[in-house]
Amino acid sequence: MGPARSFTLGELARALGADLEGDPARVVRGVAPLDAAGPDDVSFLTNPRYRAQAEGTRAAAILVSPATDGLRPALLRVPAPQVALIALLELFFPAPPVVPGVHPAALVDPGARIAASASVGPFAVIEAQAEVGARSRIGALAFIGARARLGEDVVVHPRAVVAARVDLGHRVIVQAGAVLGSDGFGFVLDEGRHRRIPQVGTVRVEDDVEIGANATVARAAFGETVIARGAKIDNLVQVAHNCRVGEHAILAAQVGIAGSSRIGSYAMLGGQVGVADHVTLADGTVLVAQAGVGSNLGDPGGIWGGSPCRPVAEWRRIQAAERRLPELLKRVRALEERVRELEGRHGG
Amino acid sequence: MGPARSFTLGELARALGADLEGDPARVVRGVAPLDAAGPDDVSFLTNPRYRAQAEGTRAAAILVSPATDGLRPALLRVPAPQVALIALLELFFPAPPVVPGVHPAALVDPGARIAASASVGPFAVIEAQAEVGARSRIGALAFIGARARLGEDVVVHPRAVVAARVDLGHRVIVQAGAVLGSDGFGFVLDEGRHRRIPQVGTVRVEDDVEIGANATVARAAFGETVIARGAKIDNLVQVAHNCRVGEHAILAAQVGIAGSSRIGSYAMLGGQVGVADHVTLADGTVLVAQAGVGSNLGDPGGIWGGSPCRPVAEWRRIQAAERRLPELLKRVRALEERVRELEGRHGG
Amino acid sequence: MGPARSFTLGELARALGADLEGDPARVVRGVAPLDAAGPDDVSFLTNPRYRAQAEGTRAAAILVSPATDGLRPALLRVPAPQVALIALLELFFPAPPVVPGVHPAALVDPGARIAASASVGPFAVIEAQAEVGARSRIGALAFIGARARLGEDVVVHPRAVVAARVDLGHRVIVQAGAVLGSDGFGFVLDEGRHRRIPQVGTVRVEDDVEIGANATVARAAFGETVIARGAKIDNLVQVAHNCRVGEHAILAAQVGIAGSSRIGSYAMLGGQVGVADHVTLADGTVLVAQAGVGSNLGDPGGIWGGSPCRPVAEWRRIQAAERRLPELLKRVRALEERVRELEGRHGG
Repeated sequence: MGPARSFTLGELARALGADLEGDPARVVRGVAPLDAAGPDDVSFLTNPRYRAQAEGTRAAAILVSPATDGLRPALLRVPAPQVALIALLELFFPAPPVVPGVHPAALVDPGARIAASASVGPFAVIEAQAEVGARSRIGALAFIGARARLGEDVVVHPRAVVAARVDLGHRVIVQAGAVLGSDGFGFVLDEGRHRRIPQVGTVRVEDDVEIGANATVARAAFGETVIARGAKIDNLVQVAHNCRVGEHAILAAQVGIAGSSRIGSYAMLGGQVGVADHVTLADGTVLVAQAGVGSNLGDPGGIWGGSPCRPVAEWRRIQAAERRLPELLKRVRALEERVRELEGRHGG
Repeated sequence: MGPARSFTLGELARALGADLEGDPARVVRGVAPLDAAGPDDVSFLTNPRYRAQAEGTRAAAILVSPATDGLRPALLRVPAPQVALIALLELFFPAPPVVPGVHPAALVDPGARIAASASVGPFAVIEAQAEVGARSRIGALAFIGARARLGEDVVVHPRAVVAARVDLGHRVIVQAGAVLGSDGFGFVLDEGRHRRIPQVGTVRVEDDVEIGANATVARAAFGETVIARGAKIDNLVQVAHNCRVGEHAILAAQVGIAGSSRIGSYAMLGGQVGVADHVTLADGTVLVAQAGVGSNLGDPGGIWGGSPCRPVAEWRRIQAAERRLPELLKRVRALEERVRELEGRHGG
Repeated sequence: MGPARSFTLGELARALGADLEGDPARVVRGVAPLDAAGPDDVSFLTNPRYRAQAEGTRAAAILVSPATDGLRPALLRVPAPQVALIALLELFFPAPPVVPGVHPAALVDPGARIAASASVGPFAVIEAQAEVGARSRIGALAFIGARARLGEDVVVHPRAVVAARVDLGHRVIVQAGAVLGSDGFGFVLDEGRHRRIPQVGTVRVEDDVEIGANATVARAAFGETVIARGAKIDNLVQVAHNCRVGEHAILAAQVGIAGSSRIGSYAMLGGQVGVADHVTLADGTVLVAQAGVGSNLGDPGGIWGGSPCRPVAEWRRIQAAERRLPELLKRVRALEERVRELEGRHGG
């Protein structure tokens, strides 16, 4: 990310396809949230909840949805302000240019195939027969194992590991310290010792996936552990061998998925969620942070919470009721007393 | 792992000590699970649960237990199919030969002792007085600190850290990114500031232990944090200072053990289990995923679930009852009404 | 940590400002806990709970509080034995001398500014315009990104990552494998795809902070993720973008803090605690291990447990009551029967 640049509001309106209400010659030099923006910044109102902040902001201009009105700063109206914000940020903070080529301090096996437009950082290691596609960037101190295949426009941040035979599609991002393709955790108890079952499978990561810092994805026992197209995986997540994480699924930080489980497409797993082995989650399943899943969740788009998880409405009802549990015990004791007395009188 | 080879069923029967029912000249070229196997593959039936898959498989042959019968493919009968599967996989996917020697791009202190048959990968760093035993393999970008000792046939995957003075036995496997011997988390509050207590102990990892990718084991304040013989630790596990993980214990991914706790031998801790500090778990303790342990569990072989954990049968009964809690509240309210009415009538 | 040295008790008393009861000429050669100490060791009694161990110890001398009396070994009386223990350990195990300078196998950009008294280990990478202050130590295989700034006396352990523009104060310690400044997890759903919002902010780590092994701290979307002065973060912790961890807060291993949350100063979060996004925790908040926080906790110094968390006393009452829940169901069923019968009789 380079230093911020400056633009006129007219330039921004053109670049973003925005409808400008305000002075097109006004110069802005940065992007900042409403509450932090100064008079040289352009800001953004992506959620009506922040309307009050928009009224108080010092920003020179605000990126807003078409219906927005009645604010002091200049307005850049666009159909989807959140999406336009991405473009705005890319204007102000363009990705640093990639200098193609292999750093002289990198170690690339002569049998590896590195696209001429790719870059490889210092002390990166690329083993035999690995392939790195066009415009991909391999960070410093990264390790790409033998016969691993990386598509085009892949970014492997410093010190990540893409182990032997792991297959990454195009535009995959691997944050620092992530490990793709460690051995799956499979053992057989043989005369009192756990013996490792060789994990002869691999990991396949499809296009547009992102893997967080220090996250781990284990290679399959046989076949492939799959992270499907567009899935986003946060820091310190564990995906065990033979799992399939569905298209565009979101796994928040510290989620753990045990072996052979299948996460449906567009599923959203909150932080620290755990999913047991051999479980299937329907497409669009939503799991509240720290939920635990022990068996299949078949209801597409269902929202679940708790460990073991339950439908979220039931979970909340139970929580509310739990709170009254100590009191309930007392009430039942009192009732028993009163009924005993009634029985006594009645019998009397 | 090299590319798969090919064998005749007769060769396989001899190598595995199997009793072959089928054509010994039939050639197979791979190993695959029942549902994925093609006509050139040998497969395996290690669990009677998968009998139906065995009946439908396209595999040329199946590794089975002695009693198995009545299947279309050739049968390789062995006393323990799961154990024979390991041997089968090692035949088809032999570990790549280790080229002994220190890579010219590694940095080994002249005072370190590296066995002639060991191998050290590029950009690995081995500090003064460290020892690496026969046939051990130190991966690329790994760090072995001063006076660390590694036994024979140890495998340190790329980018793992074995910090100063840490002691690894024979046949230990350290997956990529693991850190053995970071400083334990010990502080004293002194005039409002937490001051670090120097952690002058170390970590001892006994024979046949495996440590998962990006897992962390902290060095002891004094003495040793111990991972005992044969224990298997999965990815992203944390073992704090002065813990002892017992022989052949299994710690699934993202387990956390706080300081000075002792995990019994053959204990099995499910994913994301947490164990508080200064706790002892009896041998063979089993903890369901996400369980939390706050105090000693003395019952050998006991199974526990929940946080804080309870005996699993009790835990499941409570879960079932919880579900009925909101309804129970209503029933008690109704009872109170009815009893009030009875009391009124009775009093009247 | 170098090998242990030897001292007379007289020397120790002077160095620690201790009041010695015993032979000042007696030589000791190590430091060990009461139960492990031999006759050449000095030990410490920092908690009256261990009085019995002090009576049975073989140690030559014990570091004790002023009021302590009646023990066999020599006594070194100090006002705060735990604090004096730090000084004692630093005497016996002095930090190895730092050899200033950049290792010839490190790769430092010519535009980086490294203090002459700092040290940089082999295969460390320091990018353009990064700054490393006096006496700071950058471990082997560490990565310091462009324009990162490290203060004085910082220790970056081997293989840690301090990404571009991240700012570390003085005396910060970063354990092995930690990643400071990975991209925050921020996406916008645009026509069915999650598109990354460029994370143009950074991470600021104030003086005297410690970050654990393989922990991750994400850079802010805008502005800064802040780890404030004196906070201590254990292994495998995740701090998401735009969080603020307060002064002297303690985050135990595997804690996860979601985006934009604020942890008060002196807060103490037990292992595996999870905090949702946009949540504020009051100063001094204490969270029991595995607790889950979904909304603001405004009570300074409050202690909370459970997920979702409740005041700890309430949480414990509910746990006790839960245990009786299956029995309660039966009792209510019995009551209903009895009331039905009473109603029948009454009606009859």
